[in-house]
Amino acid sequence: MTANDEVLSRIAEAEPFLVDLVPAGEVVELGPRELLHAGPPLTGWDEAKTVGALRGSILGTLVHLGWAADLEEAEGVAASGEISLTPANDLGGGGTYAGVIARTTPVLVVENRAAGIRAFAAINEGRGKALRYGANDPETLSRLIWIEGEFTELLRAAIRASGGIDLTHILTQALHMGDDGHSRQKAASALLMNTLARHMANSARKSEALERAFAFMASNDIFFLPLTIGAAKSTMIAAANVRRGSVVTCMAANGVRFGLKVSGLGDSWITAAVPQVTGQFFEGYALTDANPVIGDSEISETMGLGAFAMAGAPALAAYVGGTPEEATRLALEMYAITLAEHPRFNTPQLDYRGTPMAIDVHKVVAEEVTPLFNTGIAHKTPGIGQIGAGFVRTPMACFKESQDALAKD
Amino acid sequence: MTANDEVLSRIAEAEPFLVDLVPAGEVVELGPRELLHAGPPLTGWDEAKTVGALRGSILGTLVHLGWAADLEEAEGVAASGEISLTPANDLGGGGTYAGVIARTTPVLVVENRAAGIRAFAAINEGRGKALRYGANDPETLSRLIWIEGEFTELLRAAIRASGGIDLTHILTQALHMGDDGHSRQKAASALLMNTLARHMANSARKSEALERAFAFMASNDIFFLPLTIGAAKSTMIAAANVRRGSVVTCMAANGVRFGLKVSGLGDSWITAAVPQVTGQFFEGYALTDANPVIGDSEISETMGLGAFAMAGAPALAAYVGGTPEEATRLALEMYAITLAEHPRFNTPQLDYRGTPMAIDVHKVVAEEVTPLFNTGIAHKTPGIGQIGAGFVRTPMACFKESQDALAKD
Repeated sequence: MTANDEVLSRIAEAEPFLVDLVPAGEVVELGPRELLHAGPPLTGWDEAKTVGALRGSILGTLVHLGWAADLEEAEGVAASGEISLTPANDLGGGGTYAGVIARTTPVLVVENRAAGIRAFAAINEGRGKALRYGANDPETLSRLIWIEGEFTELLRAAIRASGGIDLTHILTQALHMGDDGHSRQKAASALLMNTLARHMANSARKSEALERAFAFMASNDIFFLPLTIGAAKSTMIAAANVRRGSVVTCMAANGVRFGLKVSGLGDSWITAAVPQVTGQFFEGYALTDANPVIGDSEISETMGLGAFAMAGAPALAAYVGGTPEEATRLALEMYAITLAEHPRFNTPQLDYRGTPMAIDVHKVVAEEVTPLFNTGIAHKTPGIGQIGAGFVRTPMACFKESQDALAKD
Repeated sequence: MTANDEVLSRIAEAEPFLVDLVPAGEVVELGPRELLHAGPPLTGWDEAKTVGALRGSILGTLVHLGWAADLEEAEGVAASGEISLTPANDLGGGGTYAGVIARTTPVLVVENRAAGIRAFAAINEGRGKALRYGANDPETLSRLIWIEGEFTELLRAAIRASGGIDLTHILTQALHMGDDGHSRQKAASALLMNTLARHMANSARKSEALERAFAFMASNDIFFLPLTIGAAKSTMIAAANVRRGSVVTCMAANGVRFGLKVSGLGDSWITAAVPQVTGQFFEGYALTDANPVIGDSEISETMGLGAFAMAGAPALAAYVGGTPEEATRLALEMYAITLAEHPRFNTPQLDYRGTPMAIDVHKVVAEEVTPLFNTGIAHKTPGIGQIGAGFVRTPMACFKESQDALAKD
């Protein structure tokens, strides 16, 4: 069995289940003033603050956590050097867009039962104004207090009562319902709520809390996103660290740099300047308003979801600024740079062909085609929130550098 | 404004909302021994009993209602002549497949708020063994007792608390999520449950009842079907009885005859021998096992759903025995025999083109293309239940006869 065969079987055999919802500090060891962020490492606050949505998110988080009384004081705390910034990906987590995770942040825990590996991501706040998009006004923070309080308590009890929710089962169905498994999560979110409802009914102590929880979930058509991240991350941790393995196990961006991890290159990040998004903007906004690309959710694409599954998501195409034909053409391109077709994720429109799975660094370089990923777009000014969605072509430099590094091994 | 312009605007402007769940006798006047069935009129029990699923359904209903102690006694009651059989369509109702509706049967009430017209259909029991597919064993009937008891009480309270559920809003989304709006109701059912959940939480007096209700709804991916029927029926009643209108306002089958209604022909049925289904059968079954075509749900197609919307439902194609390309080709054929494109139901795959809406009798004859509809298939032996799904090509004779009748007016 070659290195990549080993990698492929670990991806294909993953069994990610949603199993818990606990403070991040109960899953991994985190310092009292440590924040986990998306993408490869940042040099510190001086760099982080240049990324509008990340700046807004960190400042809002400091207020939310009570580490600062207001946003002005938060600037001082952030600049003081007492806050440490760590890539979530280095600890088995995923930071959605500019969202950061502290020791006390409740995180959804996904366990890849085939490998006994756990990954985590924070609860999605919904579209529009959200802390993960840099919004940090009182309305945004007060919703977050409810999410991390009453809602978390109820959802935790329901998840535990369920005995674990099979995420592959939900994603497989959702791909037949117009989701790409990354930027469009309408079907997966609805199916998840359908699956959890009975356990939530069983766990609720007050019907008002249950009513608020259902109202929130029903209005949040991207609620499933952190579970895709958790599923992909728990899968890709299993596929990581296979010597000479040339499969990409992580793609992520921090607003300054894009980075990837490759199975045969251990935990190291291969980075390049962050590429620009090709997007569709909500009315009144344009590319010049866009925050630079950021987020860990592009790990979805390493598992065969997102842009790799766009051929089955025609309604997503308009949302990210294209036509169904264009989305299909781009998704088909990805077969040239992957090693396999996913055994369970497939596309009815392509005669149930498995989605392109396992990005191979050598194929990317040889074919001169780099992977795409889908993403939301926030305003670059902190506090405004989401202004569009689009897709990103990853930089070739990272793949060439990865190939060189593999050759030296 | 021509007659058909009037018909078209009534269809396009319909606003069907789910507004209530009450015994059928509270919506229409029904005799104490009257049963509403699908399709055009039957001559009586002698004819009904030749249709296996209908026979099973009627006999099971007699036992369920306490009109007979067991199935054997039910045969006698049915043969005695004291039961009257009426087409549901003649009273604003829709009978799903072989299901029958009595005065006490709880029915979902859909109001077309643009016209102040109400239509109704019974709650869907789920796939497989169901009374509407002719199954009538104790397991089937005991589920029905729960559906019409505890579940109905809870659902009724939730529907009333909601102030009405906009069905067009759900169907519009579902068509972007791989549903055809008729045979595939996976997305619409999930979205409906998402919408109702908060109201159910608010209305439930016992968490166990709520838990059972959610478990049932989450496992029933065709739960929305009676609401499509109600939406289409309340729309088509508004479009009926426009003098010289040549638009089909109803298509239905009773297992012996297929029938249609045309706007300019009032309440009369134009019938022909029931056509054969082209289907995909569950393992172990074949066309020779199939119950003849029956059901009122093909009124969905008159509103631009079902086979008319198949181009957006690639995963349905395999279920009814074809490929996505074939399903798209068949759906595109329907544009040649319809007068308009639906203003709200559309297909992302066809660049958001509206679905073909308003079947015109003259166009059907001129183009030599008759409408298609999708359907489930039950076993012809009473008690077995669903054995497959497929689509049906309606008989040309009905359209020629309708054209002749319109010419005489």
